Amino acid sequence: MSKTASHDGSAISDKQQTGTLYCVGLGPGDPDLMTVKSARILSDAKFVAYFHKKGKRGNARAIADGLFPSSAVEYPMEYPITVEASVETDTYQSALSSFYDDKARDLNSHLISGGDVVVLCEGDPFFYGSFMHLYLRLQNDHKIVVVPGVTGMSGSWTNSGCPITFGDDVLSVLPGTLPEFTLVERMKASDAVVIMKIGRNFEKVRRAIATADLLERAIYVERGTMKNEIIKPLVEKEDDKAPYFSMILVPGQGRRL
Amino acid sequence: MSKTASHDGSAISDKQQTGTLYCVGLGPGDPDLMTVKSARILSDAKFVAYFHKKGKRGNARAIADGLFPSSAVEYPMEYPITVEASVETDTYQSALSSFYDDKARDLNSHLISGGDVVVLCEGDPFFYGSFMHLYLRLQNDHKIVVVPGVTGMSGSWTNSGCPITFGDDVLSVLPGTLPEFTLVERMKASDAVVIMKIGRNFEKVRRAIATADLLERAIYVERGTMKNEIIKPLVEKEDDKAPYFSMILVPGQGRRL
Repeated sequence: MSKTASHDGSAISDKQQTGTLYCVGLGPGDPDLMTVKSARILSDAKFVAYFHKKGKRGNARAIADGLFPSSAVEYPMEYPITVEASVETDTYQSALSSFYDDKARDLNSHLISGGDVVVLCEGDPFFYGSFMHLYLRLQNDHKIVVVPGVTGMSGSWTNSGCPITFGDDVLSVLPGTLPEFTLVERMKASDAVVIMKIGRNFEKVRRAIATADLLERAIYVERGTMKNEIIKPLVEKEDDKAPYFSMILVPGQGRRL
Repeated sequence: MSKTASHDGSAISDKQQTGTLYCVGLGPGDPDLMTVKSARILSDAKFVAYFHKKGKRGNARAIADGLFPSSAVEYPMEYPITVEASVETDTYQSALSSFYDDKARDLNSHLISGGDVVVLCEGDPFFYGSFMHLYLRLQNDHKIVVVPGVTGMSGSWTNSGCPITFGDDVLSVLPGTLPEFTLVERMKASDAVVIMKIGRNFEKVRRAIATADLLERAIYVERGTMKNEIIKPLVEKEDDKAPYFSMILVPGQGRRL
């Protein structure tokens, strides 16, 4: 358990000369759903780092657009690989591992020169966020302030108009990357379900939902809270195309009072 | 699926003369972790409603303190019963049901007279929030804007310095009110676990965590992100006393890159 995350590091007297590493959770997409703290840190940022895929600016950078000074240095961190190799392969894992090593080394250089770094992160950084891989590499050497954010799933269930958990409902968050059988088992053992990381897993996930007899309750959400948001009952979605950041919600049916 | 939540209701032309019901998620406790949108709605509020237990002001009201105009009318909604009866009893359920009926009726009167209502909600309103019971009673008759918030669990895992989910980790959120056997089963079927609503369930929850062989990874959090926050490894907690809003986190051990 680190004592530095989200604290102001006053106890870290031997690190006073180095910069602070901030990671600001930006929320689900609508910039208005950023926290007051993230907005304030952004408005004062001098060095802004963010992950993105090749050829795209990335969601995090898009959400933060116009919210940090134009004089700030931008440090885009381009993933070396995304869909070219499966995540289980050594190729994927070693490419990503080297990538995070390199980026941590660069940010470390900036921090030890005394500069602060602000890393952008959509949603909530410690909930499936890529920043966690930098955090694990840098946490022992630097003062780090992580600002939690509204998750993509909170933004999605709010905009769908469907409360997700009532009373003693159990909520399970399942990555769509899981095997179909596992998805079915976990859905059956839960009251409310969120399935993330849909993308190429859409057909499999839809079959699993049908097997678990949850089709009638399932809601499909694409780009929740963003301008081009799509929300519809899953049974009304006719194709099998879904972006990686889409999700499916199954609201719980717990105690109504 | 309501189309009104979090939309600006421009399609609801027949409701233009009535007020808007806002529910603002206030986040986990630190007022800085409120969203920009909630802060803005609060700063303009004229009628502020919030739930509280008898003899206490309530967490939501405490978080919002000083953030809405002093001229605003306050409408405290005191729970008729909290620990006097078990939630499974008819006594509890009918008392709470009448309570929500009464409060919905009062807010409805204010709304149809043309006034807006801002309901305060700690955390994220659609995630175990009491507001949901008002929402279900009023959603068909009024324009409703729900603002999601950072959940208590996000604030807690962030301040513990422990990312909660990596890679394909499954996260389960379990109310501590569940039977011990169920808690054990659900913990064993998950990679990362959050146990909410600890309070009087603490001893049972700790036994379940031990049975699931998760004691070494478990973190106890009390009043996460608030001024008197307590975060410690569960094995270092010596007594069995915990407030209702405490929680226990078991971070996942998924793919590190």
